[in-house]
Amino acid sequence: MERSTGQHRVERVGEAEGPAEELSRVLPAAQVFTRDSIRGEVLSDGSANRGVTGTADALVEPASAEEVAAVMAFCYDRDLPLVTRGGGTGLAGGAVPSGGVVLSLERMDKVRSIDPGLWRMEVEAGVTTGTVHRKALENGLLFPPDPGASEQSTIGGNVATNAGGPHAFRYGVTGRWVTGLEVVTPPGNIIRTGGAVRKDVAGLDLTNLMIGSEGTLGVVTAAWLRLVPAPEARGVVVAFFDGAESGCEAILAVMASGVQPTALEFLDRGTLASSLGSFPFDAPADPGFAVLAEADGSQTEVERVLAELNEAMGVGSETGAAMSALTITERSDADALWTWRDGVSYAVAAQRGGKISEDIVVPVDRLIDAVEGTVAIGERHGLEACSWGHAGDGNVHSTFLVDLSDPDQMKRGRAASSELFEMAIRLGGSISGEHGIGSLKTSHVKAALGDTVVNLQAEIKRAFDPKLLLNPGKKIPLV
Amino acid sequence: MERSTGQHRVERVGEAEGPAEELSRVLPAAQVFTRDSIRGEVLSDGSANRGVTGTADALVEPASAEEVAAVMAFCYDRDLPLVTRGGGTGLAGGAVPSGGVVLSLERMDKVRSIDPGLWRMEVEAGVTTGTVHRKALENGLLFPPDPGASEQSTIGGNVATNAGGPHAFRYGVTGRWVTGLEVVTPPGNIIRTGGAVRKDVAGLDLTNLMIGSEGTLGVVTAAWLRLVPAPEARGVVVAFFDGAESGCEAILAVMASGVQPTALEFLDRGTLASSLGSFPFDAPADPGFAVLAEADGSQTEVERVLAELNEAMGVGSETGAAMSALTITERSDADALWTWRDGVSYAVAAQRGGKISEDIVVPVDRLIDAVEGTVAIGERHGLEACSWGHAGDGNVHSTFLVDLSDPDQMKRGRAASSELFEMAIRLGGSISGEHGIGSLKTSHVKAALGDTVVNLQAEIKRAFDPKLLLNPGKKIPLV
Repeated sequence: MERSTGQHRVERVGEAEGPAEELSRVLPAAQVFTRDSIRGEVLSDGSANRGVTGTADALVEPASAEEVAAVMAFCYDRDLPLVTRGGGTGLAGGAVPSGGVVLSLERMDKVRSIDPGLWRMEVEAGVTTGTVHRKALENGLLFPPDPGASEQSTIGGNVATNAGGPHAFRYGVTGRWVTGLEVVTPPGNIIRTGGAVRKDVAGLDLTNLMIGSEGTLGVVTAAWLRLVPAPEARGVVVAFFDGAESGCEAILAVMASGVQPTALEFLDRGTLASSLGSFPFDAPADPGFAVLAEADGSQTEVERVLAELNEAMGVGSETGAAMSALTITERSDADALWTWRDGVSYAVAAQRGGKISEDIVVPVDRLIDAVEGTVAIGERHGLEACSWGHAGDGNVHSTFLVDLSDPDQMKRGRAASSELFEMAIRLGGSISGEHGIGSLKTSHVKAALGDTVVNLQAEIKRAFDPKLLLNPGKKIPLV
Repeated sequence: MERSTGQHRVERVGEAEGPAEELSRVLPAAQVFTRDSIRGEVLSDGSANRGVTGTADALVEPASAEEVAAVMAFCYDRDLPLVTRGGGTGLAGGAVPSGGVVLSLERMDKVRSIDPGLWRMEVEAGVTTGTVHRKALENGLLFPPDPGASEQSTIGGNVATNAGGPHAFRYGVTGRWVTGLEVVTPPGNIIRTGGAVRKDVAGLDLTNLMIGSEGTLGVVTAAWLRLVPAPEARGVVVAFFDGAESGCEAILAVMASGVQPTALEFLDRGTLASSLGSFPFDAPADPGFAVLAEADGSQTEVERVLAELNEAMGVGSETGAAMSALTITERSDADALWTWRDGVSYAVAAQRGGKISEDIVVPVDRLIDAVEGTVAIGERHGLEACSWGHAGDGNVHSTFLVDLSDPDQMKRGRAASSELFEMAIRLGGSISGEHGIGSLKTSHVKAALGDTVVNLQAEIKRAFDPKLLLNPGKKIPLV
């Protein structure tokens, strides 16, 4: 440089100080952590078991949208990457930093308002999904999205990934329950999209553009949520089949029957082998496939739908497809069933010590191909494989069992995942139904979306984040 | 120009020819119309009664996405504006051209596939909403969005405006039923977003970005629609109240009651005065407000919900709020009721020969303010005013009665609309819930969305349409 002004010297001192020291002048010191004082867990997320961890120069915990805006302005001024973090339960490395500033929203945990009579709630991004569920239920209302790990995951994270869950079959994913967002966009503006209104076409749909964008376009600091009256009752039919073929036929029979379950889940043979040990009810020996179909509504309505579900799946008939089935109507039994279902992922992982689990999605008539294809791909790579997931949505958690400490198995697992993604695309599906792209799948996006869409996405990214500092390397390939 | 090459001469001939003649070399001649042969109706839409008409240099009727792409490439090469047109029922001037090429999608009217057992359908953009309704019903399924004029309006137009309707209260607007789109983007690429899958987070949500973008980002040529099993039965409670206050209280009481109607509509005193003459049932003399609340589901479920709706609105009780009410359960009666409801807009227009009708949206607890505010704004501008609409969604068709041939009344009407939009924003609402922005409201967008959002929208527009040729002047203010 030709000139050495006082200002340059100040900047150099700043650089020598490191971003954390400088950020202590932007936020209260208690909300800023240096590289050395960062808790290790903020450098990884639910993908840690796949070896994904990161580094960061500073961690900040802003307590308001204004503080988020100040941090973003700081990062934009200093060309520092900014990675936003919710509950850290993501499964695709979406919240794992590669240097720069990690912004945790855990202090933004206020329920700003709840209007039970108006079926709406405004919450800050750091409020856990479980808190939203409870606040809604206490007021006779339902917030339907139910991704796993609801006690750790936050609404901000659910919005960032457009999280799903079993009940998305009837009720849809997170985005369908968000009517507006408060977002901080570069270089540090606070915007609102939508709001406490249930319809709005004044502008382009920036709410849904932000939803699922995994922190690459802005930092979501609060959301207006839509709620519905909670159903009076629930009931579940669990039906066991001798194999994937009869099980998938039963799923199609349910859809053709004219009833609409709230959830329509499946578990294949390998998944059942890993998880039935802790099944809270009687189950047949060595079942090849299981279907969980839930109904909700008034007591009478639930009884009617459960009867139709049993009939559609051929339960109890001489020529019926199901090996056996149980119908659960007691709340405590249903709770026990869903707790077991939530634990399936851990039970599968326990088989070999680890797993590589994806979340491909296919048209529901291709479910059988995805289930059988997963096992076949595993065999080709010498890995045990299984799948379970949201059958009605064609959303399959295809899983390869691995020993995480064995580099060769991990390599074969990654190759199997690549082949899996190719299969999903070939079947008319997609490489991710609910976990998102994060860092793990970015290299597969071009094959999934095609060049034109990838280019458009990159342009949109640049429109929001011209310096490309927000969650770099995630979600959006920059061509 | 300094040089005069052969190519320049060809271009000059082309220019002398006019775009229609040149387009005859891009599309079959029968699908191209010159300025002189264009049918007058393609130069206007449902906003014609507000004096909005346009001009065009050519009309084309492509029959495939490939032909749409060829037309777009032609326009991009020649810097010609391209305005896409569906059924022409839009109410905001969104399909009205100002020169350039009008692209009608009426030849793209094929149902590409319907899979009843899989609850999905793929249709070209020119298929009417009514056709989708019928095809679904013939297969025991429901496509819930029900904007007015369903026999004229097309799925492409519904997607372009994210059309609503009475049943959006329970089922949501058009976008909630679209899982994927085929879109032609500049300078002539055919892309697919989503598809026959029910979940997909591989990319940014370009499907919802296109939905409601009113032809400014691309031309939607086909849509994958999600369907649900059709309900067995329907029933409606129509309750009359002495005024807006008790009527709006009844709406809030319904929402607080724990039942979820499929539609929750209102009509205010002025609207009833204009339209009750053709009401197909008995009604009290001079009612101040009416609420229509519909239930669907199994026969038993409908009976249960209708009883709860009656109770919530205080029907039949000594201290009840409702003046009188009727409960409709026969299908033919329900059809007669909804046909009457569809005609309300025409009945109101007939009072003075014309009307200026908007579609503001407010948080549902501010419905009373919007209803009373509409009348007060009309009074301030010397115009009779009334409102009706989708109460549960806070979506209010605020309407000023005018003589369309009286320039002074029209001027006062436009001033009243401006004041109405300011009120909607002040109440925490939006300037459009379902009609869109078109050309009529573009000048109000900045006040509604703020500078940062308007700038982001303009950048997104440029990312898709760098030459700004798609439906210029509509929806998106370019700052």
